[in-house]
Amino acid sequence: MSRDVSSLQAARAGYVPHLPAVLRGDAQRVELGERTAPSSDAEAIAALFPQTIGQPMARLVPAEPTPATRPLRVGVVLSGGQAPGGHNVIAGLFDALKSLHPDSVLLGFLKGPAGVIKGQYVELTAEFIEPYRNTGGFNMIMSGRDKIETPDHLAACLANFQQLELDGLVIVGGDDSNTNAAVLAEYLRAEGSSTVVVGVPKTIDGDMKNEQIEASFGFDTACKVYSELIGNIARDATSAVKYWHFIRLMGRAASHVTLECALQTQPNVTLISEQVEADGETLAAVVERIANVVVERAKAGRHYGVLLVPEGIIEFMPDLQTLVRELQDILHKNEAYLRSIDTHTERFQFVINELSAGAAQSYAAMPRSVQEVLLTSDSHGNIPLSQVETERLLIDLVGDRIRLLEAEDGVDYKFSTIGHFLGYEGRCAAPTNFDASYCYALGYTAAVFVREQLTGYTVHVRNLLADHEEWQPGGTPVTMMLNMEQRKGKPTPVIRKTLVDLAGKPLAEFHAHEADWALNDRYTQPGPIQYFGPAEVSEQPTITLQLERG
Amino acid sequence: MSRDVSSLQAARAGYVPHLPAVLRGDAQRVELGERTAPSSDAEAIAALFPQTIGQPMARLVPAEPTPATRPLRVGVVLSGGQAPGGHNVIAGLFDALKSLHPDSVLLGFLKGPAGVIKGQYVELTAEFIEPYRNTGGFNMIMSGRDKIETPDHLAACLANFQQLELDGLVIVGGDDSNTNAAVLAEYLRAEGSSTVVVGVPKTIDGDMKNEQIEASFGFDTACKVYSELIGNIARDATSAVKYWHFIRLMGRAASHVTLECALQTQPNVTLISEQVEADGETLAAVVERIANVVVERAKAGRHYGVLLVPEGIIEFMPDLQTLVRELQDILHKNEAYLRSIDTHTERFQFVINELSAGAAQSYAAMPRSVQEVLLTSDSHGNIPLSQVETERLLIDLVGDRIRLLEAEDGVDYKFSTIGHFLGYEGRCAAPTNFDASYCYALGYTAAVFVREQLTGYTVHVRNLLADHEEWQPGGTPVTMMLNMEQRKGKPTPVIRKTLVDLAGKPLAEFHAHEADWALNDRYTQPGPIQYFGPAEVSEQPTITLQLERG
Repeated sequence: MSRDVSSLQAARAGYVPHLPAVLRGDAQRVELGERTAPSSDAEAIAALFPQTIGQPMARLVPAEPTPATRPLRVGVVLSGGQAPGGHNVIAGLFDALKSLHPDSVLLGFLKGPAGVIKGQYVELTAEFIEPYRNTGGFNMIMSGRDKIETPDHLAACLANFQQLELDGLVIVGGDDSNTNAAVLAEYLRAEGSSTVVVGVPKTIDGDMKNEQIEASFGFDTACKVYSELIGNIARDATSAVKYWHFIRLMGRAASHVTLECALQTQPNVTLISEQVEADGETLAAVVERIANVVVERAKAGRHYGVLLVPEGIIEFMPDLQTLVRELQDILHKNEAYLRSIDTHTERFQFVINELSAGAAQSYAAMPRSVQEVLLTSDSHGNIPLSQVETERLLIDLVGDRIRLLEAEDGVDYKFSTIGHFLGYEGRCAAPTNFDASYCYALGYTAAVFVREQLTGYTVHVRNLLADHEEWQPGGTPVTMMLNMEQRKGKPTPVIRKTLVDLAGKPLAEFHAHEADWALNDRYTQPGPIQYFGPAEVSEQPTITLQLERG
Repeated sequence: MSRDVSSLQAARAGYVPHLPAVLRGDAQRVELGERTAPSSDAEAIAALFPQTIGQPMARLVPAEPTPATRPLRVGVVLSGGQAPGGHNVIAGLFDALKSLHPDSVLLGFLKGPAGVIKGQYVELTAEFIEPYRNTGGFNMIMSGRDKIETPDHLAACLANFQQLELDGLVIVGGDDSNTNAAVLAEYLRAEGSSTVVVGVPKTIDGDMKNEQIEASFGFDTACKVYSELIGNIARDATSAVKYWHFIRLMGRAASHVTLECALQTQPNVTLISEQVEADGETLAAVVERIANVVVERAKAGRHYGVLLVPEGIIEFMPDLQTLVRELQDILHKNEAYLRSIDTHTERFQFVINELSAGAAQSYAAMPRSVQEVLLTSDSHGNIPLSQVETERLLIDLVGDRIRLLEAEDGVDYKFSTIGHFLGYEGRCAAPTNFDASYCYALGYTAAVFVREQLTGYTVHVRNLLADHEEWQPGGTPVTMMLNMEQRKGKPTPVIRKTLVDLAGKPLAEFHAHEADWALNDRYTQPGPIQYFGPAEVSEQPTITLQLERG
């Protein structure tokens, strides 16, 4: 009974993604719009990207069929964290290239940008791609987190592309990878290379979106897996009636995943990093806010609840920003000495004495395991905040606060907790029907951009709430999306991560119900992703997209 | 956009479970078989159950319609941990009672057996039940882990049943709860009460099954949720190509969940508690076995993998059984002294000196957090082994072993790990089509048993691999399933938990592929539970059931 694939994999292998009308039959041309400019730091960016600055917006419009006059040779690379649908980007790209010319060739660079630099690739044939259609993961050609940034890297890429006679490279990645696409496009054009570079917006975090890009792919699927599990856990909470579940979700910078999951499942407490920062809410204030909900619910006989927290939240709290800055400084100055101290008690005492009064108080309130993490450094010399298990930190601190309140009020609030982290369970899920079709269309669009020799663009597919027929493919010049940020101590052009919009509809929708959801049981169970059945269960886009573009 | 239910919940609300032909239209009678006897401890059990010993097997066969001559009054209670489908047992029971007589009444006792003892209940009307049809969780009437066991409890139940004029009580639970059903049935009959007691076999652990009971309900759904997530994690492993994922699954006693998930997802290493015990495999031997797979895969360039471990495994290892026994003894004798020691180092030293040489070695090898857990006691004076995070223990010990091998071999095996626990994510999932129909049929069957005034039975539905039409409902006298075990120091009648059969087909199937799955990547992605679509994805029973009954 050992099997190559599951029954569902077998059934999904035959799924044919929907293709927007304008992408069918090579019957489209690129319509260019007005010249564009970065929304900030325009001069600095123009200086860095003289070849590709100001390129116009591009959209595909119906036209007479335009097959390629010769076979195209294209490379593709997957960059950064996995997101559901990556394989369908490649499948769409492949099918489009073969449609443009049957002798076109697609090469898959292995293990991320490092494969491009080293020239390590496989030829992606129809047989090779077949088993990966509509599957999750990036295992077809794997991924990596390297960047193409040094002059040596760039020169190596140029040499590889010349040798492989590439017409284009498609980089599938997030904000950094698309920035990388712009850097490489600029370099290649300056060197007189004919290889174009096209980016595809990927990230389950949902933070690569803007006026042009309605959604990064993978967000739909990942949020639906997490929402399935949160809904199940909420149902458990109302059945066992004795646990608070604190659930940490992916999202170091932006809280889109947490917000979408909250809208899908209606839990009691949801922390949104951007809101916490805007409110200048300290860790103690957040703890107090949660404790209030716990106590109010306990008074109503509800000794259970569900809380969602994005993994990166502590970086948005003003007191912890101060604490981390001071600790970083203390670590730098006393690295050897701190390492020479054996016991936690002594390290703790030393650090407390060095910290300002406020920071010392914050640090002292932390559980010991977090205190230890905050005294370590990663390979870049930074405190590895990602190792702080935010849900456990909150469980500890809220527990302390509740015990104090119990003593004051003379009441047992029965606060029992269970912590969860939902991350790896959803990153490599098989794409929803939405992501399967969306990614396939993105790959198809990238092929048209290569045919048209457009470089330094991130492709997109818009009008996503409409019927697939009316989806609108196009591309945005990456330079238009850039701004200058400090990276490793120097100004660097990067695509700004799009955080949760404080004035946006998804957050407003959440706030409109926040108080009701806190005290009452309004949990919903989105259930598992459905690939079949009525459209309202199998084709439903995220609530975020519905609110933002509806 | 705040919603009462999700789109999928709305779509599932209308799902009509399949009903076996013999259950339709009250057109069935109970056919009684031969007198039965416990397979062991027959005399002791006969002495404890003089009223209900030896009752015959019962099966439903087609007959002229037999509606109830008067309205039936029935109580139902959910006992123990949640399992998907519990609400459908109640819905099936309700629909059957109403079909037998439109004025029949169903009472739901609240928060488990404690509600029966205290007489706390709600009347379950059609309107009350409606929103819970085909949903997960036990939140309709909640559950609890109390037992009806003291003379006072039994007397309270009798009084409540008399006052409520109950024809029957249906207890939905696992082995202990069904044992409880037998105890209560025996007591009520001895007291001349006309209230019958019927059990329904529930547990996601899958350990309440035997020749008569093909599967406990909830196992199908829970295993499918866990398999979805394991499949996703495996896909992540092959995409990131740098992590070993150690995944702990529910199952303190039996490893059925782990075995089923392994057959569904084909991971590299699967630990089966029953096999470990049968082989007398020590913790060190298990660690060595895992380390060997890690090294072999690393030599083939595969620095990643997936391992499944049942949460209860350490209780099956001979060396840890010895260690726990010795520690229990040391704890009892030195409780006050140990509590008086402040530091871990001193406690550790004291315990090491008291332990036998072998046990001391095992204890010393444990990570500190586990050493601490092993020095605590729960409210029954037992070491709370359930607090040992088995996946973290193995990560630590395998990591130590790999570092030693790296030093010996002069090779970096690149062993990076991520731990997971999958539990609460699946216990309250909405039932699969299989569990939805199976549970509905179980509830329906229980109603017929009450109509026929059969007491002390656990109902079942057999022939589950056949079309729903041909499913065969019936019941087993609980006394037949009892044996005597030591509980709290005295011989007690209990239903034996059915562990993984060392000679059974599911384990054989696993062993047939174990070596291949270890070194190669044979992962499959079962994907999310499908409620719609082709039968091979939406109606597929567990592989365990297919192998055991196929």
